Amino acid sequence: MTDTSTKTSTKTPLTLLGLGAMGTALARTWLAAGHPLTVWNRTPAKAEALAAEGAVVAASPAEAVAANGLIVVCLLDHASVGSALEGLDLTGKDLVDLTTGTPADGRARSAWARERGARFLDGGIMATPSMIGAPAAGGYVFYSGSPDLFEEHRSALEVPAGARFVGSDPGHAALHDVALLSAMTGLFAGISHAYALIEGEDISPKDLAPLLTEWLGAMGFFAGAAAERLVSGDFTTGVESNLAMQVTASSTYLRTAAEQGVSPELISPYLDLMRERLAADPAAHAGEDTAGAITLLRR
Amino acid sequence: MTDTSTKTSTKTPLTLLGLGAMGTALARTWLAAGHPLTVWNRTPAKAEALAAEGAVVAASPAEAVAANGLIVVCLLDHASVGSALEGLDLTGKDLVDLTTGTPADGRARSAWARERGARFLDGGIMATPSMIGAPAAGGYVFYSGSPDLFEEHRSALEVPAGARFVGSDPGHAALHDVALLSAMTGLFAGISHAYALIEGEDISPKDLAPLLTEWLGAMGFFAGAAAERLVSGDFTTGVESNLAMQVTASSTYLRTAAEQGVSPELISPYLDLMRERLAADPAAHAGEDTAGAITLLRR
Ligand SMILES: NC(=O)c1ccc[n+]([C@@H]2O[C@H](COP(=O)([O-])OP(=O)(O)OC[C@H]3O[C@@H](n4cnc5c(N)ncnc54)[C@H](OP(=O)(O)O)[C@@H]3O)[C@@H](O)[C@H]2O)c1
Ligand SMILES: NC(=O)c1ccc[n+]([C@@H]2O[C@H](COP(=O)([O-])OP(=O)(O)OC[C@H]3O[C@@H](n4cnc5c(N)ncnc54)[C@H](OP(=O)(O)O)[C@@H]3O)[C@@H](O)[C@H]2O)c1
Repeated sequence: MTDTSTKTSTKTPLTLLGLGAMGTALARTWLAAGHPLTVWNRTPAKAEALAAEGAVVAASPAEAVAANGLIVVCLLDHASVGSALEGLDLTGKDLVDLTTGTPADGRARSAWARERGARFLDGGIMATPSMIGAPAAGGYVFYSGSPDLFEEHRSALEVPAGARFVGSDPGHAALHDVALLSAMTGLFAGISHAYALIEGEDISPKDLAPLLTEWLGAMGFFAGAAAERLVSGDFTTGVESNLAMQVTASSTYLRTAAEQGVSPELISPYLDLMRERLAADPAAHAGEDTAGAITLLRR
Repeated sequence: MTDTSTKTSTKTPLTLLGLGAMGTALARTWLAAGHPLTVWNRTPAKAEALAAEGAVVAASPAEAVAANGLIVVCLLDHASVGSALEGLDLTGKDLVDLTTGTPADGRARSAWARERGARFLDGGIMATPSMIGAPAAGGYVFYSGSPDLFEEHRSALEVPAGARFVGSDPGHAALHDVALLSAMTGLFAGISHAYALIEGEDISPKDLAPLLTEWLGAMGFFAGAAAERLVSGDFTTGVESNLAMQVTASSTYLRTAAEQGVSPELISPYLDLMRERLAADPAAHAGEDTAGAITLLRR
């Protein structure tokens, strides 16, 4: 094969709607990789720097969509995508929506696109703007929807960050995205509570930080262990830290919070959930792994 | 130096009160390392197997305490330690309490030991029983209290697991212990919510597990980043995911939970805390890092 890096005509041309912090980061990677790029943003000023870097600036969403077959959208939310694409001709287009939304948003946009004659792929970005175009940072995008669209445009989609296809249900990219981000809020809540506990003590947060990172890294085994139990339905074999002991220990966590003047609000819901699981049938659940409490959350 | 492994007389003799799951694991490591060991447990049957392995079984706490200068206690809670040691002569003894408790429990036991003429060290065990005597598992014990006691008995204390001395305040071992365990409950809560979200969907927990582990490992950077901001007091420089954007995103997490029929109880307290921080002064806090919310928890 010959080096095609200077023949931009071999790189798929595409259109990007939305030049916020994330859209701008995405645009730069496609331009740098030699993809002909047409951009549009509601506030035109944000397109100026990109024009200097080689982007074609469209005056309207209609003009931007007409320019190419592959249309990527990265706007604030589901509603802003609807208003930007309202009334446009999408026949034969490939629409990729990187705007954060819920699974139902993804499914609704997929049906909406199909009615207009377009193929559709929903995306959930697991990266901050500075991780875009920086493969070593480990960011990636979950995609779900049309497998044909994904395979056809995979090389273009992999330019800003890694691409992980998670199935043809257009709601599943958002579901994976929100599942990981929700889990992250739990992690952040736990870390926040820990720092509140040591405030005013002669312990520097900088000394606690590496201990927290190491411990939470080791305790990440729970994700794999809980998955095994949820799939097998066996919450009792080989348990090392049983529910009864954890419930006893949780009163120590709550007393410590009270002693330190810290609200227990970030940790008490999980402790309450463990208590509820134990109380529902102490004989059956005392020796269980805490993963059993997960089964109470669908209510 | 010559090999002293067969001269057990060179290893510090010690007494252990408490042969539950943890105490039994501790005892085995000292016996295996050649430390002369005297044990006592309220229910004598639990000492039988250890007697066969070389432990001297005492008939009462008084007899056990009289046998050696170094006394390690690992009972259920602070109250059970008080009742086991009630009225005993502790003059000149070195007392090490590995029972889980609060910082106030540690400080109270320290003052109580000093009144009785004993040196005191409190411990918080960051390990499950199967991690005891298994250095590769990475378990360790936080110690605080008498630095002299710690230095003198360090080699014996390091037999079951790594030993980390965190200062002369006898409450600080428990504070470190509970801070890390509380942070872990946040991590477990986040992972639990994520699995509840995918229940009933065509996504296996076993496929989500490695994605969760990888993502939460990467997001562990928050511990270090938050520590820097708490120490400097600067929550606004170099922010990539600002509070206003996070609050907007949080409504997507809540809508997704509602769509999937999952109670938001495990994630909503942290989302509420971010909203409260933003609402207190939107102009000042919109561009902040989420670490700013930690300052609200002392109430
Ligand atoms: N930043 C991150 O760390 C990150 C990470 C993962 C995912 N995301 C997702 O990426 C998407 C964009 O985020 P961002 O960081 O780029 O946000 P942002 O900087 O706030 O940009 C928002 C973009 O949406 C446009 N917009 C808002 N309302 C609109 C409307 N009614 N009609 C047309 N355009 C409208 C804005 O146009 P104007 O310029 O005219 O305001 C701007 O282009 C969001 O869904 C976000 O959740 C962001
Ligand atoms: N297991 C873990 O994963 C783990 C991890 C870190 C820290 N810890 C801590 O280690 C300590 C012991 O835990 P464990 O797992 O060994 O618990 P356990 O298996 O339930 O054993 C409890 C021990 O306390 C004794 N005890 C209870 N009440 C007593 C009383 N009033 N007077 C005298 N003795 C009494 C029990 O004696 P009997 O045999 O007579 O009932 C038994 O020896 C706890 O503080 C726990 O939080 C445990």
